[in-house]
Amino acid sequence: VDDPDAVEFALCWDQPMGVLERFPNLKCISSLGAGVEHLLSDHTRPEEVPLVRVVDEHLKQGMAEYVMHGVLEHFRRFDDYRSQAKLSQWKYLKIPHIEVSGIGIMGFGEIGRFVAYRLADFGFNVSGWSRGPKPADQVRHFFGSDKFNDFLNCTDILVCLLPLTPETENILDTRTFNQMPKGAFLINVGRGAHLVEDDLVKALDSGHLSGALLDVFREEPLPEDHPFWSHEKITVTPHIASVTNAATASIQIIENYRRATDGRPLIHQVDVGRGY
Amino acid sequence: VDDPDAVEFALCWDQPMGVLERFPNLKCISSLGAGVEHLLSDHTRPEEVPLVRVVDEHLKQGMAEYVMHGVLEHFRRFDDYRSQAKLSQWKYLKIPHIEVSGIGIMGFGEIGRFVAYRLADFGFNVSGWSRGPKPADQVRHFFGSDKFNDFLNCTDILVCLLPLTPETENILDTRTFNQMPKGAFLINVGRGAHLVEDDLVKALDSGHLSGALLDVFREEPLPEDHPFWSHEKITVTPHIASVTNAATASIQIIENYRRATDGRPLIHQVDVGRGY
Repeated sequence: VDDPDAVEFALCWDQPMGVLERFPNLKCISSLGAGVEHLLSDHTRPEEVPLVRVVDEHLKQGMAEYVMHGVLEHFRRFDDYRSQAKLSQWKYLKIPHIEVSGIGIMGFGEIGRFVAYRLADFGFNVSGWSRGPKPADQVRHFFGSDKFNDFLNCTDILVCLLPLTPETENILDTRTFNQMPKGAFLINVGRGAHLVEDDLVKALDSGHLSGALLDVFREEPLPEDHPFWSHEKITVTPHIASVTNAATASIQIIENYRRATDGRPLIHQVDVGRGY
Repeated sequence: VDDPDAVEFALCWDQPMGVLERFPNLKCISSLGAGVEHLLSDHTRPEEVPLVRVVDEHLKQGMAEYVMHGVLEHFRRFDDYRSQAKLSQWKYLKIPHIEVSGIGIMGFGEIGRFVAYRLADFGFNVSGWSRGPKPADQVRHFFGSDKFNDFLNCTDILVCLLPLTPETENILDTRTFNQMPKGAFLINVGRGAHLVEDDLVKALDSGHLSGALLDVFREEPLPEDHPFWSHEKITVTPHIASVTNAATASIQIIENYRRATDGRPLIHQVDVGRGY
């Protein structure tokens, strides 16, 4: 950038810490994705400049696909059938009815609600949990920390779709796992820092949790020698659950650029105090 | 059976050939499942006795789950991600948009239509094909043998849910595969006899088809030494896509028993000439 004074709009993903204070005339800072923790954690960020994020239908759809597959993979025991097939073993395995198995979605914002409704439409027994009240006409919804245990008690498959904030960091820990029924399964598509890795390994090794599907990690790419790669109850995917679609996201980014330079109200603005 | 004359209702699955002619006073023969090919192929079956089958919501739902998982598994390349994970490989793989990939459902009866609508509701681009016209408000529908190639031409993932009749036996053959785009994928949840096994292996080995998920086979259990078990592009499951649910199916079987003994019209009666 030759002339930092001329920059009015910053579009960021994992930007170098401190870079934003170099631009004195910013009117808007936009995340390239749905998450904004990389912006909120940069304490040199000019506080008076509004933050926006991308709310993309394609991103929601991709997430619903990943979670639907992960839920069916576990619920219908396709992992066990694959192991049997390696031994040429023809054996029927019992499964519960779809209405019996409880799917719990943590995080009930734009993405969480979309995923919850898609699973419920398909026949699953879905509950959602979030910090505050939310519209939830199609599924059971719990909110607030005092309802967290009630939510976990009826959750056989837990899907983390929370934003990363100081309050949600490390939320997937032994205390949380212990509230879920024995044999429960974890899908983390939030952020790596939601999960206390050692607590997960302990819960899997003790048999309390039956398995985990993880798409996000504290360090990405996940280091080659990380034990998650080879743990037999953990499935690792390389942060592919859903990616921002350039064709659809660019439309709302351009819209916010126009609104910011015209001084009009922005869309998908982040509540900095709340963290999302 | 001590007194064959006293038997008025026969409930059958893979009955010994010829057994039905031993009961002179049958008023109804019911299949235990959705298929009736085991009854139609028994030429000693008393022709004047009406045939009925089970049309079970749980059976449809189970099939939708299996097909949804199989479609997502292939479409989202989870098989490739599993191979990468074995090598601790962190690499994003490109996939098409969900609207671009064409899902073709062969067989558009009770089950086929249910599965097609569930996939369409979820966002997939779904077409159906059947012998005759059918109600199809939510997806594109082709019918008749002269539209079969048009249907196949736009099918990237083919799902066979046909009933087994003399007309549909061996329908999954080289001619059919060649009409599908290169790289297409096959899911057979119909019957084993729909598939010409050697033609599938040829299409996979030439690279024209990219893979197959098979739940039904000419011989079940699939013999331990059958090459499908170990073919790297074939996934075998042991006829578990969907099973008749006793709790729900028994209600309609009892209903037909009452109707048959009272001489009232039956439900889910089979058109013997059509074969389903």
